[in-house]
Amino acid sequence: MSMFNRMTQEDLNYFASLMPGRVFFGDAISSDYDHDEMTIYGHYQPDCVIQALSTEEVSAVLKYCNDHLIAVTPRGAGTGLCGGCVALHGGVVLSTEKMKKVLEVDTVNMTATVEPGVLLMEFPKALEGTGLFYPPDPGEKTATMGGNAMTNAGGMRAVRYGVTRDYVLGMEVVLADGSIINLGGKNVKTSSGYSLIDLMVGSEGTLGFLTKMTVKLIPEPKVNLSLLMPFDDLDACIGAVPAVLGCGCEPTAVEFMEREVIACAETYLGKQFPDTSADAYLLVRLDGASMEALKPAMDTLTDLALSIGAKDVLLADTDERKESIWNARGAFLEAIKGSTPEMDECDVVVPREMIPVFVRRSVEIGKEEGVRICSFGHAGDGNLHIYACKDHLSDDVWNKVVEQVMDKMYSAAKELGGEVSGEHGIGHAKKSFLSESMGEKQIAIMRGIKAAFDPNGILNPGKVI
Amino acid sequence: MSMFNRMTQEDLNYFASLMPGRVFFGDAISSDYDHDEMTIYGHYQPDCVIQALSTEEVSAVLKYCNDHLIAVTPRGAGTGLCGGCVALHGGVVLSTEKMKKVLEVDTVNMTATVEPGVLLMEFPKALEGTGLFYPPDPGEKTATMGGNAMTNAGGMRAVRYGVTRDYVLGMEVVLADGSIINLGGKNVKTSSGYSLIDLMVGSEGTLGFLTKMTVKLIPEPKVNLSLLMPFDDLDACIGAVPAVLGCGCEPTAVEFMEREVIACAETYLGKQFPDTSADAYLLVRLDGASMEALKPAMDTLTDLALSIGAKDVLLADTDERKESIWNARGAFLEAIKGSTPEMDECDVVVPREMIPVFVRRSVEIGKEEGVRICSFGHAGDGNLHIYACKDHLSDDVWNKVVEQVMDKMYSAAKELGGEVSGEHGIGHAKKSFLSESMGEKQIAIMRGIKAAFDPNGILNPGKVI
Repeated sequence: MSMFNRMTQEDLNYFASLMPGRVFFGDAISSDYDHDEMTIYGHYQPDCVIQALSTEEVSAVLKYCNDHLIAVTPRGAGTGLCGGCVALHGGVVLSTEKMKKVLEVDTVNMTATVEPGVLLMEFPKALEGTGLFYPPDPGEKTATMGGNAMTNAGGMRAVRYGVTRDYVLGMEVVLADGSIINLGGKNVKTSSGYSLIDLMVGSEGTLGFLTKMTVKLIPEPKVNLSLLMPFDDLDACIGAVPAVLGCGCEPTAVEFMEREVIACAETYLGKQFPDTSADAYLLVRLDGASMEALKPAMDTLTDLALSIGAKDVLLADTDERKESIWNARGAFLEAIKGSTPEMDECDVVVPREMIPVFVRRSVEIGKEEGVRICSFGHAGDGNLHIYACKDHLSDDVWNKVVEQVMDKMYSAAKELGGEVSGEHGIGHAKKSFLSESMGEKQIAIMRGIKAAFDPNGILNPGKVI
Repeated sequence: MSMFNRMTQEDLNYFASLMPGRVFFGDAISSDYDHDEMTIYGHYQPDCVIQALSTEEVSAVLKYCNDHLIAVTPRGAGTGLCGGCVALHGGVVLSTEKMKKVLEVDTVNMTATVEPGVLLMEFPKALEGTGLFYPPDPGEKTATMGGNAMTNAGGMRAVRYGVTRDYVLGMEVVLADGSIINLGGKNVKTSSGYSLIDLMVGSEGTLGFLTKMTVKLIPEPKVNLSLLMPFDDLDACIGAVPAVLGCGCEPTAVEFMEREVIACAETYLGKQFPDTSADAYLLVRLDGASMEALKPAMDTLTDLALSIGAKDVLLADTDERKESIWNARGAFLEAIKGSTPEMDECDVVVPREMIPVFVRRSVEIGKEEGVRICSFGHAGDGNLHIYACKDHLSDDVWNKVVEQVMDKMYSAAKELGGEVSGEHGIGHAKKSFLSESMGEKQIAIMRGIKAAFDPNGILNPGKVI
């Protein structure tokens, strides 16, 4: 079937001698490596797992695999949601989990250079005392920074600060043939030829293996506060978003949340959400230099919200209150996951105006197919996370309806001018939807690009395109 | 020599019948079309100039030229600085000058959709009364928005708001074979396959012909003010930049300017600059919701500047004062151009910390080669505009030394971790420097990308790579 060679004992011995103690095969491979966070997309056992330590080791592995036509699947923390880091074609899973050094924090140029395996939750420790911070803020804090770059992860703070792409200034990348290239550097802008670095961001390990990354840092906002706005229903809630974004208050985050999902989080966390008065909430965060400096924006937003249908505006300016709200928000994915034996996910992005239309449509689709639908998401940037929950359905029924649900979701998104993924990527699970959404011409160009980087196609085969 | 066919009378007749009155050949071609703003890079006469009106016309032209192996050079307003829009291989210059409609301003999604030929100076008129604005702010206001996208133009406000790339959400592009693709849309983020739109931005018309563009708008800041900080010398001036950027005041623009260049602008404009006390100035602009909201940042910056060597801090908060300063800044390029019969330009970007090192080195290089050097630039993002002026030098001497000067400049930039162009692009003038800077591997990948989009290489041949 596959155009790739399965690994021989000779191949395994070669790697084992090169990187003693960091090459695993046969029963020594933990089952963790055969899936990501979405087990619904299947389990795939690689021939071996290698925990590389250096650029040189990555280069040696790729060169060997390229010469021997062995598939290589790059993998970070395995927290992806579309099967991007699983070995569909066997071969090597090349893990960044041991490449986790923060190599430099440059306070003058306001950059940091990291190895790809640095965890998002660990990185802030390296910035302590510098007054600088790294804005990308995906919900999954145990993800790696390299993985974030490879999927162009977004997160809560993207409304104000942008996504991972906006923070990647430089990359050291090992190409499929083992050669090492450096893209960008510490320069904050450039018009110097095709932007290979922007191509690499979001390429999900199919174009090259990231071994170092230089990211932009910005001065840390000294204070923040959140405003929780209860609305009668989701329509009113989402309808308020354009005004919130357009009022000049520069919100950091604008999230929407529904009672049903909040209830899941309450159960999951064993903690009450601070408000129970409404079916839908808009949660707005503001960052600033001082509470005094935030006051005008806070007042503007409060008046605005009350004038366009909010039943109240709750200020969260203490750590305790902020945590009670944001911890609930942060637990949504795990809470929904815990509420059902299996689920599938749709991470579409639509023009912001279309959020209520899409959410309503997703509820209808759930009813049409007899599947419970939960949703939450980044109202500020049109990125929705919609979950289809298996609940009590039999495997047979579920497998059939979940496909229908997803087909309908993605075609609705396309009709509304949306795209397949806002921040989770394509992996292998969303390939057919991407292909459908982009059309043949664009997919053909993407294949041509893939061939320019990786002529033998050994890097993360079966993903994206 | 060229792999392209020169156009026959038959070709010309075909186009003339297709687009009557908008196809020019022979003596009817204005000499404006044979160069851009940098005449030092030569004059190239196309076989014909076509002023297309629609996507369909662009598609018809490209399909025909692709089938007949005729070179096509896309051209906007011709304000480029590296010979990007000149017909090195004859054929068609395909101009966007008549495609200048603002097709939509969407105040809910905060986007606008424009044809590529809309001038940067015209676009704000379409936004009047919406409270929205388009942040990219290159000095050359008679440039087209399409040209800005194709070179990833930067401009003064990039420090806070980013460059053109950060505002391009959607594109309609005609490929070399005449097929039409749509990239992105009104979505503000995406992780849906390789970012073809980011590849298209900055590709200087070599990958496709932009026929429509959807840009992101943001709420217009209600007020702004500028602080002019005189310093004893350039080192002290540039040395202050990291503190200015790091203090959390979110400056919109941070420009440096030297007395010598200011004097050129005074002569050019026939107006005095409001301060004559210093050799070097830092000019910082702040945007905000109200003067009251800007006060803390203004106070912080003033105290900071005085504590790190500024001789004074002049506040420009009236229109008159702001204009007197920013008009001078805006006139620098034309003023330098007017001060010498010929000049060459270097638009490198370096890590911000390296700006004073690079500027000092550029002065040394000028002395070594006997050439007057003028510089100014975007201190906030490390992008320098350095001019070598011919002055009284003979053509022979000038032609020899200017090459030496540029070689030395670009190799100095590379040593300091810089890149060839911060915002003007590569065109044909900077190709060898890009090639030198990127190395063979990256150039080979770029060629592979080019081939994926444009297998016959008809689009803007001889540019970028």
